[in-house]
Amino acid sequence: MSKLISIDTHDVRFPTSRTLDGSDAVNVDPDYSAAYVTISTDTGETGHSLVFTGGRGNEIVTRAMQSYGAVLHGRDADELLNDLGAASRLLVHDSQLRWLGPEKGVAHMACGGLVNALWDLRARRAAKPLWLLLAEMPPEDIVRTVDFTHIRNVLTPEEAVEILYRAEPGKAARIDELRQHGYPAYTTAPGWLGYSDEKLVRLCREAVAEGFRMIKLKVGGELAADRRRMKLARDVVGPDVKIGIDANQRWEVDEAITWVNTLGDFDPWWIEEPTSTDDILGHRQIRRGVSPIRVATGEAVANRIVFKQLLQAEAIDVMQIDATRVAGVNENIANLLLAAKFGVPVCPHAGGVGLCELVQHFSFFDYAAVSGVIGDRMIEYVGHLHEHFVAPAVVRDGRYRAPGTAGIGAEMLPESLNTWSYPDGPGWRELDDQTTQSTKDRD
Amino acid sequence: MSKLISIDTHDVRFPTSRTLDGSDAVNVDPDYSAAYVTISTDTGETGHSLVFTGGRGNEIVTRAMQSYGAVLHGRDADELLNDLGAASRLLVHDSQLRWLGPEKGVAHMACGGLVNALWDLRARRAAKPLWLLLAEMPPEDIVRTVDFTHIRNVLTPEEAVEILYRAEPGKAARIDELRQHGYPAYTTAPGWLGYSDEKLVRLCREAVAEGFRMIKLKVGGELAADRRRMKLARDVVGPDVKIGIDANQRWEVDEAITWVNTLGDFDPWWIEEPTSTDDILGHRQIRRGVSPIRVATGEAVANRIVFKQLLQAEAIDVMQIDATRVAGVNENIANLLLAAKFGVPVCPHAGGVGLCELVQHFSFFDYAAVSGVIGDRMIEYVGHLHEHFVAPAVVRDGRYRAPGTAGIGAEMLPESLNTWSYPDGPGWRELDDQTTQSTKDRD
Repeated sequence: MSKLISIDTHDVRFPTSRTLDGSDAVNVDPDYSAAYVTISTDTGETGHSLVFTGGRGNEIVTRAMQSYGAVLHGRDADELLNDLGAASRLLVHDSQLRWLGPEKGVAHMACGGLVNALWDLRARRAAKPLWLLLAEMPPEDIVRTVDFTHIRNVLTPEEAVEILYRAEPGKAARIDELRQHGYPAYTTAPGWLGYSDEKLVRLCREAVAEGFRMIKLKVGGELAADRRRMKLARDVVGPDVKIGIDANQRWEVDEAITWVNTLGDFDPWWIEEPTSTDDILGHRQIRRGVSPIRVATGEAVANRIVFKQLLQAEAIDVMQIDATRVAGVNENIANLLLAAKFGVPVCPHAGGVGLCELVQHFSFFDYAAVSGVIGDRMIEYVGHLHEHFVAPAVVRDGRYRAPGTAGIGAEMLPESLNTWSYPDGPGWRELDDQTTQSTKDRD
Repeated sequence: MSKLISIDTHDVRFPTSRTLDGSDAVNVDPDYSAAYVTISTDTGETGHSLVFTGGRGNEIVTRAMQSYGAVLHGRDADELLNDLGAASRLLVHDSQLRWLGPEKGVAHMACGGLVNALWDLRARRAAKPLWLLLAEMPPEDIVRTVDFTHIRNVLTPEEAVEILYRAEPGKAARIDELRQHGYPAYTTAPGWLGYSDEKLVRLCREAVAEGFRMIKLKVGGELAADRRRMKLARDVVGPDVKIGIDANQRWEVDEAITWVNTLGDFDPWWIEEPTSTDDILGHRQIRRGVSPIRVATGEAVANRIVFKQLLQAEAIDVMQIDATRVAGVNENIANLLLAAKFGVPVCPHAGGVGLCELVQHFSFFDYAAVSGVIGDRMIEYVGHLHEHFVAPAVVRDGRYRAPGTAGIGAEMLPESLNTWSYPDGPGWRELDDQTTQSTKDRD
């Protein structure tokens, strides 16, 4: 027996707003940040995880992880790891904490952070990367980790087991294939709203040269600018490279339909987050109004219950799961199973710090053991901040390489944690000094 | 000019779990709690507000209010109060904090707490209770406070102004009527799941004697027990008093339909929260499956965008707004306007500390200046913890009396704040001592 004896959190932020990396129509100045958590046992094992945020408010998520951490503290680690379904329910359905969601926002993200740290510990024990650990679990064991509360009308545990058994034939061969060839990626690097046209063109050219078959542009600022940028991008990448466009929930329903159709000349592959992700009926209407342009959403979808309805309502063509928005690995397994049931492709969201590292595991697992197909599926890739991770995501020739390091991929380098601790890490202090200096220089 | 110079928060909790007041099928042991906030100006004015929670996690909401408070700190109070629409948008749409929701859960509740504190300050300046302040505002000014983001496809500002103008005739007479006769209440006092049958019967009898025309029972534990309790209650209150039943999101969709229909023998007036409040399509199916029993929900509805869809989908018969779940007065005005557009009655939720005090204002305002009708509308009433408020809600003969004290009603007595400060207030210390003592006695 080993016991969980500490749950340590760190508020880590990167000053991305100074270069406008990550800027879009709604998130105009994000400082990509991680509410980082390390859980430890009395036998010296550790599990690492993080929740991505946009900067301000990162301290609220770390506080929430401390609060939820009290639910786990002192418990038998073996028991928790042997039944991660029960562990997740302990957190998500805590009878008092539940009021704070239920199952959404800060509270749910905090649960996800802790659940993922437990999965990290379990994968380390098994000496496997998460995707392989999952791919090799028996279907019944996978399904036991899933919380079917409020999705049973659309997916029962029995159906879920069936879906997984249907993917058993050929699984070993697909795992080999993934190890050899990886999984397709698309890149958002060229398309941030804060970039100049010159930078956009240069990055589009580089993306194609690097082997990407899809890029993404942020839209929703000004229509004329979107048309100009979309034309520039299309001219550079040619007709065969897909261009996704992403409005980050900027529009009302009718506005979305008009705007997207106006960009139709440049053949966008999908429109992502055309409106509030809470608006299931709005997405359905938009999908009907912009067809054949696909509708994608998910990075801000609060939980499996909302995804369930987006699928029931035929409101999306592409499900974009996020690794740290929902209650961790378990709930994303539910999301993958729902998508498989409806035959909707999953293309994970990764625009943020650590998200590439985490979310790749779900697509690898999906191909190996859930949907069993790749087709047009791709994982988002954003090329910055990987240097802070112990095992950075690797993309070559436009494809994610199979992660080989044991765990879920969230572990950061101690030096990065230290340098970018907010607000007192040396990185932030230096920036503050520069700001002070440049203010003085102006005086 | 006056400046906002402090935003102080208190974590206040009441040990209601020890008596099972407030217990239901999901919230089995709530300690009714308030994340309490006081804002102050440099001219000595104060505004008070609170966010209700179930106990654990109250500290997360107070932390979140401190974080959001930084957005307001040092600003010109007159500017904020003169344009509360803009003030709300500053908080809700902060470009970095927004990721934590968007517009849901802890982050949204924290925004609501601060927005309500600003309204409290404004109402105190006007020397009016909130409902009267709102009822006397010109329609254009009310509409200017509302954030129409992501609801414009169903309600435009122009339509909202029209709705309010339609209610202008007779407004003065309705205000007089409210002052004389108040507004109907129903009581949840008899129906908590933790109560014995004897206590249930006694409290049902008392409720009728006190003039209530509707009571509410918690259901969703065991079907046989629900049938027994429902029969007991119906026998006591007779055929003319309405009985609402409330499952607190306990069921799956099909289960809800079967369970509710099995209780149909006892003529329930509505079924409240039959399943996840995120499940718009599920509510629609349940409503079709249990008709003519009404479907009610709202205390856990995250925002106006979800309410919009519940109305669009004809998924609810009754909208139950909550005073501290959404982003404050402004968003509840949006909710009232949406309900008025669809002709759906609003019966606010008040099971929690301070919620009766706060939410009554919305129903009074609704009758005076929005829907202009009462009909079957009622405000929930729960009879405990009122003694902690400076101006407690008053219910007599089954009706809320018109609040007369300036402000929104959230101000608590300094002694209560002190006694029940968590975890170090004298009330909690004494309870801890008793627990320690009784443990020692057992040894």
